[in-house]
Amino acid sequence: MRFAEHGEAATVVKLEEVELGQTGPKDVLVDFLAAPINPSDLNIIEGKYPLKPSLPATPGNEGVALVREIGSEVDSNYFKPGDRVVPLEAGFGTWRTSAVLPADCLYRVPSNVPTLTAATLTINPPTALCLLDKFVHLQPGATIIQNGANSAVGQAVIELATARKINTINIIRERPDWDEVSSHLRSIGATVVTTLDQALAASAHMPKPELALNCVGGPSATKLAKMLSHGGTIVTYGGMSLQPVTIPTPLLIFKDIRARGFALSINCSRAEKAALLEQLIPMAQKGAFSSQRFETYAIEDFKSALQRASEPFRGGKVVLELPAYDTCEA
Amino acid sequence: MRFAEHGEAATVVKLEEVELGQTGPKDVLVDFLAAPINPSDLNIIEGKYPLKPSLPATPGNEGVALVREIGSEVDSNYFKPGDRVVPLEAGFGTWRTSAVLPADCLYRVPSNVPTLTAATLTINPPTALCLLDKFVHLQPGATIIQNGANSAVGQAVIELATARKINTINIIRERPDWDEVSSHLRSIGATVVTTLDQALAASAHMPKPELALNCVGGPSATKLAKMLSHGGTIVTYGGMSLQPVTIPTPLLIFKDIRARGFALSINCSRAEKAALLEQLIPMAQKGAFSSQRFETYAIEDFKSALQRASEPFRGGKVVLELPAYDTCEA
Repeated sequence: MRFAEHGEAATVVKLEEVELGQTGPKDVLVDFLAAPINPSDLNIIEGKYPLKPSLPATPGNEGVALVREIGSEVDSNYFKPGDRVVPLEAGFGTWRTSAVLPADCLYRVPSNVPTLTAATLTINPPTALCLLDKFVHLQPGATIIQNGANSAVGQAVIELATARKINTINIIRERPDWDEVSSHLRSIGATVVTTLDQALAASAHMPKPELALNCVGGPSATKLAKMLSHGGTIVTYGGMSLQPVTIPTPLLIFKDIRARGFALSINCSRAEKAALLEQLIPMAQKGAFSSQRFETYAIEDFKSALQRASEPFRGGKVVLELPAYDTCEA
Repeated sequence: MRFAEHGEAATVVKLEEVELGQTGPKDVLVDFLAAPINPSDLNIIEGKYPLKPSLPATPGNEGVALVREIGSEVDSNYFKPGDRVVPLEAGFGTWRTSAVLPADCLYRVPSNVPTLTAATLTINPPTALCLLDKFVHLQPGATIIQNGANSAVGQAVIELATARKINTINIIRERPDWDEVSSHLRSIGATVVTTLDQALAASAHMPKPELALNCVGGPSATKLAKMLSHGGTIVTYGGMSLQPVTIPTPLLIFKDIRARGFALSINCSRAEKAALLEQLIPMAQKGAFSSQRFETYAIEDFKSALQRASEPFRGGKVVLELPAYDTCEA
């Protein structure tokens, strides 16, 4: 799949036959198994993301692939045909059937990590891990608060925080399937699931949050900042409302509230990504990050998939199943 | 001077005779020479400040006093009658003729620091020093940007930054006395003096600022944040516009802009204040912080002084001259 101009994804993305290059000595030939459609993929296609690929470009920033062939200089103790691999950086295009890629851009994932979990392991769980680790030193018993708690990052945050005995206040929007979503989030460890309006009352019995994770902006971010403890930090990693982050002056001056931002694509080298995956894979092997619900689409139905990925209140993340998927047990 | 209820300063502040307490063994009896009327003094009187004194209270958070008598256990090598002293913390009330105060709340100021400079040395210059030192490590040649550059803190920032060869972009409002104010700020070291609208063009030749100092909020703070370099920090220490600080999401996520806040009254112990004064006094002895313009009022005219202190576009800081002022060369 490629796009030659920016625009609405379902319009500008086309399925094309592209000649595969030669597998060089340091390359790996892979067949993709599955690749998700993330909100940032759509923003890149629309030209609304600060990282702009040269066109025509193959979209897709994460996915899982099967190694078919390795170059003569690739460490054959590390990569073998049949191994599953994930990309160590975003931007080389995962929405395709096969590719020749430099071996040092790929990371091997054990076979007992489910395919769809592996396909969605390199952006959202590492983002969640960085959000928890890079800003505030959280002790067991501490509290964090997040909006967009049903997002893929939000769910990974819940799972990672729960493993560390950190309390989570999880804000989701009023929605038709509220009971289902909130019981799902509680089943993966959420301490409290609440709306923005009810968050203060619903968490009155808990220690005040030291960290707030914001992917919404606008009044939601302001409310998170107001709920923080003295010296607390609000980290913005998304802006779903398209509104900026607004912090009342007294919170900054007298409560020492700190506002930061984070983007994995800006802050994370290949080596750092590999170190994050090293922490995440043992959790994925025990079943973490697999409880997220998925809506899968065959590659022929990619236009429906792109359409669906742009709708609110989906049941789960939209994932493209590439042809090799059928050759491989999920 | 005292106030027994919150309200407009010129209405609720009254001149009263109050019996002086005994000078205890660890106390010092002082006669005040001069005390400024700061914006935060008015906010405290109005009940709009988070630190609330018990009423009735004597207002005033800084000033300079003459030692008249010292208690039997006070170190007579440090304090002598005739020494000038300043408070090491805010809140014990400086708008009065005389007071008995604990010696460990007072700091001796050399006699070659001008009286009005000493009277205004313990809040604004230490705030400026903290703003420059506590958030970003600035090297000579670096740039900072500030709004409210004509405020007492703003002027102290210019003098301290100039001494360190740090460039300053100084934003002031359009005003009747623009030429006079801007040439005054340039005379104390301002690299550029400009309006909010012209700030980007006026500073195009300079390195991008790493630190922004905000005492205004609203669109002014947003503009400062937009002008910062990657990873830059905006520190809020006031909110003159009564509008919050709004940061666009992409600045947080992709430019790693950080928003912080600072209040000397919250963040600074007596020992820290003394350490700051130790740095500031040698500069004050060489004439720094004395170029600020003052409007002085006798204590009998305190109502006019309070009125004047609440007006915009003043020529300088309003300072009360207390009776002992006349006994002492300025």
